[in-house]
Amino acid sequence: MTHQDRHVVFYHAPQSRSRGTLNLLEELEADYELRVLDLEATRQPAYLAVNPMGKVPAILHRGMLVAEQPAVMIYLADLYADRGLAPALDDPLRGPYLRWLVFYGSCFEPALIDRSMQRELAPPSRSPYGSWDDVMNALTGQLAAGPWLLGGRFTAADVLWGTALHWTIGFRLVPELPLLREYVDRVHARPGMQRAAAREEALRAGRS
Amino acid sequence: MTHQDRHVVFYHAPQSRSRGTLNLLEELEADYELRVLDLEATRQPAYLAVNPMGKVPAILHRGMLVAEQPAVMIYLADLYADRGLAPALDDPLRGPYLRWLVFYGSCFEPALIDRSMQRELAPPSRSPYGSWDDVMNALTGQLAAGPWLLGGRFTAADVLWGTALHWTIGFRLVPELPLLREYVDRVHARPGMQRAAAREEALRAGRS
Ligand SMILES: N[C@@H](CCC(=O)N[C@@H](CS)C(=O)NCC(=O)O)C(=O)O
Ligand SMILES: N[C@@H](CCC(=O)N[C@@H](CS)C(=O)NCC(=O)O)C(=O)O
Repeated sequence: MTHQDRHVVFYHAPQSRSRGTLNLLEELEADYELRVLDLEATRQPAYLAVNPMGKVPAILHRGMLVAEQPAVMIYLADLYADRGLAPALDDPLRGPYLRWLVFYGSCFEPALIDRSMQRELAPPSRSPYGSWDDVMNALTGQLAAGPWLLGGRFTAADVLWGTALHWTIGFRLVPELPLLREYVDRVHARPGMQRAAAREEALRAGRS
Repeated sequence: MTHQDRHVVFYHAPQSRSRGTLNLLEELEADYELRVLDLEATRQPAYLAVNPMGKVPAILHRGMLVAEQPAVMIYLADLYADRGLAPALDDPLRGPYLRWLVFYGSCFEPALIDRSMQRELAPPSRSPYGSWDDVMNALTGQLAAGPWLLGGRFTAADVLWGTALHWTIGFRLVPELPLLREYVDRVHARPGMQRAAAREEALRAGRS
């Protein structure tokens, strides 16, 4: 694919879940065009015509919408496969990589919402994630070997998890275990993460 | 990859969410070995050693665990790419394909659980899916063109959605709109879906 073909339009709301995608785009040194929304604008007709769920992140590539954070990340890391953040289709890490990206949206987020709203849980066998402890134990068990989620190799899954654990620890939704704190710091030390932080800061200050 | 390399071990509990993976394995005419569990066995140490979340579906390929239904499906359809159920990485349908597979786990399942438990919803902008109507409208909007989720092309996403809508309509969790009913029937008319149904029936009858 030529440079031009990899151009991506990225819908982003500062201080929202779309931050992970901003971080990934910078880690990939991707060619992207930022369209900044506030969270009110996501429910306006103009944006609903782009993404009927009214959610960010969303990207357009060659005119096609990709939404849902784990899907956006899988897609982008494959589009910029030469940057090495996605195990290739025949790499033994491909399966675990997909598992942990999908686990974020299918287990961690539902567990987080249920917990923050202090809800009665679904019966464990019917719940998509079981219990909060199941989720935390699976995650910390996976991170124990380190330094990255999949071991020696840094991938787009680390961008997602490093970003998510940063804000969830910040809001005291996730306990600040040394294992998690060190992991978050390790992810945030990456040059792309730092470029993204500067860009986000400029957006907040209205200097985009 | 040789035939041998594509051998997959599949952990399945009859009458559970892992049915979609059984359906996909049959649609792919995959080389798989079935390990049947009941839903009690998923929480036993022997199975927790395979998948620490204690959930099915899960597969092992070349010794690596892949869990989380959308991840399992993305992985398997790529492993058997020659069967044509996954748009290739550079296919314009690849992004929408990933979006709808991930949407199932990140939006549809959480919405379904919240609805079946009659829970108070999270504020729409914080909820991963907004409202039940947002989810249903996005889904029926996508299916309106048909005949398949992505239009003219049948993919692994249809195996997931056809299977899920079948049981959720059956349990009256999803309204039996003609659009959905016809879609479910279209998916279930496929030869692989029918082979899977026969296999599931044999398992239930103890004739596995
Ligand atoms: N399931 C979606 C959830 C994304 C999401 O909820 N984004 C929030 C921002 S944190 C949003 O766009 N809220 C605006 C709204 O719902 O109006 C995903 O994983 O991408
Ligand atoms: N997030 C998981 C959910 C899978 C799931 O909840 N499976 C149920 C069967 S319907 C299960 O294994 N329950 C057994 C248990 O939790 O003990 C996925 O998408 O694969």
